[in-house]
Amino acid sequence: MVIKMAEFKYEIIEHLGVISKSSKGWTKELNKISWNGGTPKYDIRDWAPEHAKMGKGITLSDDEMEKLKYLLQKL
Amino acid sequence: MVIKMAEFKYEIIEHLGVISKSSKGWTKELNKISWNGGTPKYDIRDWAPEHAKMGKGITLSDDEMEKLKYLLQKL
Repeated sequence: MVIKMAEFKYEIIEHLGVISKSSKGWTKELNKISWNGGTPKYDIRDWAPEHAKMGKGITLSDDEMEKLKYLLQKL
Repeated sequence: MVIKMAEFKYEIIEHLGVISKSSKGWTKELNKISWNGGTPKYDIRDWAPEHAKMGKGITLSDDEMEKLKYLLQKL
């Protein structure tokens, strides 16, 4: 069995805002992030204080974010 | 070692829209879902055709969704 370490780099290109904060100081944030030097994508994710660790989240393209924005406006 | 199977039930209370569709037919959707009979929460997640399988996603409370909507309106 070969165990591979997933290694990747990322850069938070734009910090767009904090959605919520947990009692342990983790924040759910909306950011624009470049993964492995690629085109920046929207990202909704939990972060430890100072962005020291990243938690679960999803990544959305510009088109997907436009569609989500449209759906939310109808709520 | 004890291996536990994670078992849970969920109900899609409200289908709010499709955000995108992959070439394999999976859809990224915005739904309102009740997990284990709890208060329905917003959910952004990938789904196989007919909702046969669920993929990665995030769950947001009403407050979190309000905040996200506000942040998106500023984009």
